Amino acid sequence: MLDICLLGTGGMMPLPYRYLTSLMARCGGSNLLIDCGEGTQVAIKKKSWSPKPIDVICFTHYHADHISGLPGLLLTLGNCERHEPIHMIGPKGLERVVSALRVIAPELPFEIIFHEITKEEQEFKFAKIPYKIEAFKLNHNVLCYGYKLSIERLAKFDAQKAKEKDIPLKYWNRLQHGESIEEEGVIYTPDMVMGEARKGISVCYATDSRPVKNIEKYAKDTDLFICEGMYGEEENNAKQYKHMTMYEAAEIAAKANTKEMWLTHYSPSMIKPEEYMDKVRQIFPKAKAAKDLWTLELEYEDE
Amino acid sequence: MLDICLLGTGGMMPLPYRYLTSLMARCGGSNLLIDCGEGTQVAIKKKSWSPKPIDVICFTHYHADHISGLPGLLLTLGNCERHEPIHMIGPKGLERVVSALRVIAPELPFEIIFHEITKEEQEFKFAKIPYKIEAFKLNHNVLCYGYKLSIERLAKFDAQKAKEKDIPLKYWNRLQHGESIEEEGVIYTPDMVMGEARKGISVCYATDSRPVKNIEKYAKDTDLFICEGMYGEEENNAKQYKHMTMYEAAEIAAKANTKEMWLTHYSPSMIKPEEYMDKVRQIFPKAKAAKDLWTLELEYEDE
Repeated sequence: MLDICLLGTGGMMPLPYRYLTSLMARCGGSNLLIDCGEGTQVAIKKKSWSPKPIDVICFTHYHADHISGLPGLLLTLGNCERHEPIHMIGPKGLERVVSALRVIAPELPFEIIFHEITKEEQEFKFAKIPYKIEAFKLNHNVLCYGYKLSIERLAKFDAQKAKEKDIPLKYWNRLQHGESIEEEGVIYTPDMVMGEARKGISVCYATDSRPVKNIEKYAKDTDLFICEGMYGEEENNAKQYKHMTMYEAAEIAAKANTKEMWLTHYSPSMIKPEEYMDKVRQIFPKAKAAKDLWTLELEYEDE
Repeated sequence: MLDICLLGTGGMMPLPYRYLTSLMARCGGSNLLIDCGEGTQVAIKKKSWSPKPIDVICFTHYHADHISGLPGLLLTLGNCERHEPIHMIGPKGLERVVSALRVIAPELPFEIIFHEITKEEQEFKFAKIPYKIEAFKLNHNVLCYGYKLSIERLAKFDAQKAKEKDIPLKYWNRLQHGESIEEEGVIYTPDMVMGEARKGISVCYATDSRPVKNIEKYAKDTDLFICEGMYGEEENNAKQYKHMTMYEAAEIAAKANTKEMWLTHYSPSMIKPEEYMDKVRQIFPKAKAAKDLWTLELEYEDE
């Protein structure tokens, strides 16, 4: 249903054994990318996922490790014979930054449509993308946003209820899909045929930031929460550089009651993130130190 | 004396198993880089050569695969506490292109000094670099230059000759290093103490181009000639996209009488360059299909 691949887990600079942090989501034939650092296109190729169906690219912010791979990716998309427009979402400055970087990728066979985030929390929907994208403001040393992807699930159809209320059979399908219908003065509404609400699928992605309430809010009850855990050491620069420790990320995850948390955006000085995980899991047992190219296929829950 | 590392051998786009074509030269504590594509800083790290002593960056041209890694490298140099200025050499547009890319690397703790190439052939010398850099025009679909690095070697001191000409011993060293000296109306010149000229060390680097006379001229008698060989197949796009086949490169190498040629800048579709080498070596036996991170330590010839 919704395939998630964390293309890399590094922060600050690409390393021979670690790609920069970036996420690709794949759903219904359409791909979405969050951030595109130096080497992100190589990680996509290594994963054997095609860049061609990327319809939306979201940027958290414009530090080089989150956008420096964009010109190369755009040229590669051009070489793939991509012709459909690409939507880009990002903080204020999006068009200015992307246009400057395109000095080395001036000619592309597709249009870029810019969507600058103007609010602290903002929702985006696109015809080709079968889920909702929410951007929410973080607290970094430049303007920075996290993202949540959500697929809503229809409530279960309750045939028993429909029969009891004498709803004509011919309207069941339309009512199930949210339509209200009037016939000879009688109004039939979806709630007359629908049972309990059902949980959809959602993923929350937050780098680079100090811990803020917004993260907990958007990570709430998600299936997967991908969060930066730049430092594991007790002595660290998290406050100075406006990043998060693995423990701070775990505390948010615990409060948000997410099903699973993947830590990412490790400092180049952090060689083995796993070393810190015993302590992290004391705070949130379902925390994992993610590795490059980790993938998760999210499906609706069984009933 | 002069260490050469071909950091990558790919053209067009970086691949999981092939870095983009770029060269690092190391000599006398000062490094020089030719081109900086997406991932070049990762290749440097993989080689365990430090980027910090890079004093000069030469650009062949401004296609993304030759410069897209620059913002990331500059930030990494900043993080290395580099404070000395960096010289950049490149075709017309250098300052405009680099300044645009610096939209994501605006603050650096060192100065960049731009040297735009204004002639078809141009020589550059820098106090910190113990060799001469020559740029020479190629024939690509945008303005493009090749580079030659040359260390000149002093002729051998001829003590016998100095004695025969009654040159005072106290002047030998100064004369040997090129100084002319006058004492009591007698003029002593370096030719009075020097023997035959001696071969220095030189390396020629040429991507991306159709075969042109300039390449043969600058590859002439070099110790190492690094040349693009983008295609090995009989059917190819070399003429259309203004690139060279492996065979065209070999023909230049044969005419130029270089000691050794490394082919590079392979098309992403060329999986195993070695497959074509039997035919290439029929044209120039000392041709090699280079691989990422190949290194050569060049020394003066034994006498």
